[in-house]
Amino acid sequence: MSELKLTPRSEDYSKWYNQVIMRAQLADYAPVRGCMVIRPSGYALWENIQQALDRRFKAAAVENAYFPLLIPKSFLEKEKEHVEGFSPELAVVTIGGGEVLDEPLVVRPTSETILGHMWANWIKSYRDLPMRLNLWNNVVRWELRTRLFLRTLEFLWQEGHCAYSSAAEAEAETIQMLNVYTDFAVNDAAIPVIPGRKSESEKFAGAVRSYTIEAMMGDKKALQSGTSHFLGQNFAKAFDIKFLSKDNQLEHAWTTSWGLSTRMIGGIIMVHGDDQGLKLPPKLAPIQAVIIPIFKNDAEKSKVIPVIDQLRQQLAETVRVKVDDREETPGFKFNDWEMRGVPLRIEVGPKDVEKGTVVFARRDVPGREGKSFVPQAGIVEAARSALVTIQSDLLKRATEFRDAHTHEPKSYAEFKAVVEDSFARVWWCGDRQCEADIKEETKATTRCIPLEQPGGSGMCVHCGKPAQEVAIFAKAY
Amino acid sequence: MSELKLTPRSEDYSKWYNQVIMRAQLADYAPVRGCMVIRPSGYALWENIQQALDRRFKAAAVENAYFPLLIPKSFLEKEKEHVEGFSPELAVVTIGGGEVLDEPLVVRPTSETILGHMWANWIKSYRDLPMRLNLWNNVVRWELRTRLFLRTLEFLWQEGHCAYSSAAEAEAETIQMLNVYTDFAVNDAAIPVIPGRKSESEKFAGAVRSYTIEAMMGDKKALQSGTSHFLGQNFAKAFDIKFLSKDNQLEHAWTTSWGLSTRMIGGIIMVHGDDQGLKLPPKLAPIQAVIIPIFKNDAEKSKVIPVIDQLRQQLAETVRVKVDDREETPGFKFNDWEMRGVPLRIEVGPKDVEKGTVVFARRDVPGREGKSFVPQAGIVEAARSALVTIQSDLLKRATEFRDAHTHEPKSYAEFKAVVEDSFARVWWCGDRQCEADIKEETKATTRCIPLEQPGGSGMCVHCGKPAQEVAIFAKAY
Repeated sequence: MSELKLTPRSEDYSKWYNQVIMRAQLADYAPVRGCMVIRPSGYALWENIQQALDRRFKAAAVENAYFPLLIPKSFLEKEKEHVEGFSPELAVVTIGGGEVLDEPLVVRPTSETILGHMWANWIKSYRDLPMRLNLWNNVVRWELRTRLFLRTLEFLWQEGHCAYSSAAEAEAETIQMLNVYTDFAVNDAAIPVIPGRKSESEKFAGAVRSYTIEAMMGDKKALQSGTSHFLGQNFAKAFDIKFLSKDNQLEHAWTTSWGLSTRMIGGIIMVHGDDQGLKLPPKLAPIQAVIIPIFKNDAEKSKVIPVIDQLRQQLAETVRVKVDDREETPGFKFNDWEMRGVPLRIEVGPKDVEKGTVVFARRDVPGREGKSFVPQAGIVEAARSALVTIQSDLLKRATEFRDAHTHEPKSYAEFKAVVEDSFARVWWCGDRQCEADIKEETKATTRCIPLEQPGGSGMCVHCGKPAQEVAIFAKAY
Repeated sequence: MSELKLTPRSEDYSKWYNQVIMRAQLADYAPVRGCMVIRPSGYALWENIQQALDRRFKAAAVENAYFPLLIPKSFLEKEKEHVEGFSPELAVVTIGGGEVLDEPLVVRPTSETILGHMWANWIKSYRDLPMRLNLWNNVVRWELRTRLFLRTLEFLWQEGHCAYSSAAEAEAETIQMLNVYTDFAVNDAAIPVIPGRKSESEKFAGAVRSYTIEAMMGDKKALQSGTSHFLGQNFAKAFDIKFLSKDNQLEHAWTTSWGLSTRMIGGIIMVHGDDQGLKLPPKLAPIQAVIIPIFKNDAEKSKVIPVIDQLRQQLAETVRVKVDDREETPGFKFNDWEMRGVPLRIEVGPKDVEKGTVVFARRDVPGREGKSFVPQAGIVEAARSALVTIQSDLLKRATEFRDAHTHEPKSYAEFKAVVEDSFARVWWCGDRQCEADIKEETKATTRCIPLEQPGGSGMCVHCGKPAQEVAIFAKAY
């Protein structure tokens, strides 16, 4: 399929996005509305995301666990804001083993409530705290408008849940995990996210404060790419999670939760992809380099293949490399691997064999400029170094793109024009009604109040009231 | 909790089993009947099982993917035997987003049907075959009698699904994956399983032939620990999975499926555990060695701790090691880590520091006999070698136990006595009614018809008819 040209992004971004996913075989539509099948190329990418995060979680003394899929419906109703936030989105099991259930069970939309229930049993003393858990699992939210990876009825994610004996520790950890997400997004996914606080109206149902990392996509819309919530004592009170403090007082625990999902794959597609297809950051690419044999006849083939075998073996120790030995033309293979976003293509033909060289072609630099002759002798080091360069160039380009499309309008009129097609970074009063008015008038929402603030104060871009903080406004996925 | 003594296995095996799980904190009961929470110690063990299998799957050219949780109910009804097998066990979502659904959705009990649906789209030509997929996911089966790890409403597993262009290839792969399970069970879990074929009445709903690995637990009951099914063209016909063959003929594909679940953790507990608790095989143990500092006062502590720091660092490169620096007595710690099944305990006290030694204590060899003095200088090699010995001794002991409790009764009277408390290895006619009668009369079922057969023929132990094969009968979980 991948020999077909994609619809250019400039023509129809959304169509381009779906075509990339289908042709790079990342995913496919499932028979149930809004659900998806993640195909091997997409799942291998998710596995690399998992590993990159899991390593960071373990370094932060977080332990993995598994909590059940099915939650008594009454649990969801225990925390007032939580139930309001999630009720419209629930999938409910009412029949089990052929019988109508006494109490309906909810397919988890998130696990705060079941964690709360178990923690009430497990946490007795300050010595049981902190408790730091992470769950890799699937959740279901009955979304009306769905899109592959970005918003699906079922999605894969990790949800971290921690309990602490003090508010300060809990909120510090909320920020710590946001920093883990930022570090992962910037350094592994090559996505220059903006870490910040969510506004009151955008925060998680049941949180005291929500934090987010926000990224700019190729169409200049924002994607919320990971969130970290300080839940205060809200869930501890709803589920009676109490511990005996060092001073022998019975206190409610302070809890947090934080999550990042397969939505990140949508972000990677939209931040880096181009009209030739996917462009994967080397650190996450399941295949980092693909070797394409070039030959016209059997005589040439017999020269080329043994050299390729040897090069592959050398490379395999440090690079995730694949040889494409399919019976297709080199041109077909070039297009196919470009579509699939493999960062580095290595071409080996009979002339290369004679000269002891190979051709490197960078996925991120089109045409002649991205090509170079590399001596076979130093191929491992050259490939490693090319991948490092590609990784940092992807980040550099995405950062430049974001910065070129982030403006600081000085008036509301200017603001309205900016958010049509850019991020607006503006003083904002923080008022819920003011935010609602802006959304109504422009379709732009507060993406976050960045952690990094200029200091001082200003006038709200919309209502003119005094503003203490700068916020990012944009249209969003 | 773990300082409390367990109920001895000889007194109440089932109680012992549950206590081990709770006290070693492998899992806990969830609020929904029959569901469980897998706690970090249990989940880390599962992660190691996953890695050990995943490595083998990838070596067999199987790719991971993800298929949706929710399946249209009508899909389950397409394959006649499949629907009969699974209908009584389904959890059904009837409400989504507050509305009653037009078509109820089933929470997957297994994914043959949804694979079938997608494959019908993806598989067009012999060039698309073989297709080898594996899914790591959760499934729900509405079981009436449940038991932690062994049989839960929801469980974690992997389900492999492959499609081939010929029956021979498909059945060869069914056996190949059974061999993967056997290799994993024997060499990583130290469980001497018996690979074999399931009888007609015990096979998977929808399979032509089912294969299994069967293990003997500490109470001499059998545990089906992994299964591999040759599905023939049953699902291909039900879902219209057709491909154009090399000869340009439209043919139905031949499919297989194979699965191994968190049930394996129950097997590990019951094969190796003793009255002191869990006994983990080193290859799968999340913590392979625990270092316990021994000191009576601060002066001794200040001698011991720096040495331990250094030893931990050296060991960490090749051994999964943990230092227990909790403020508890050494005696408490010894019991606690015995309960949790850590294979090797390393004690370091002031005298050890003076002599440049440490004490090794093997979990699998109780008392003085399992203890040895080891020079600090060679600790890494000594630990590695001790773990190898423990691994192979666990397998040896489990094999001896199984063989000592596997008999070949010559009469049905003898058979009845044997299956009370052992495995019976007997000539069996293969008749469905004969099998049903034996089950009715003894509660023993055919566990498998071992792949390894003595050859020749005999007389059925029950009905006396001619028998071509030997089968294993036992009571089972």
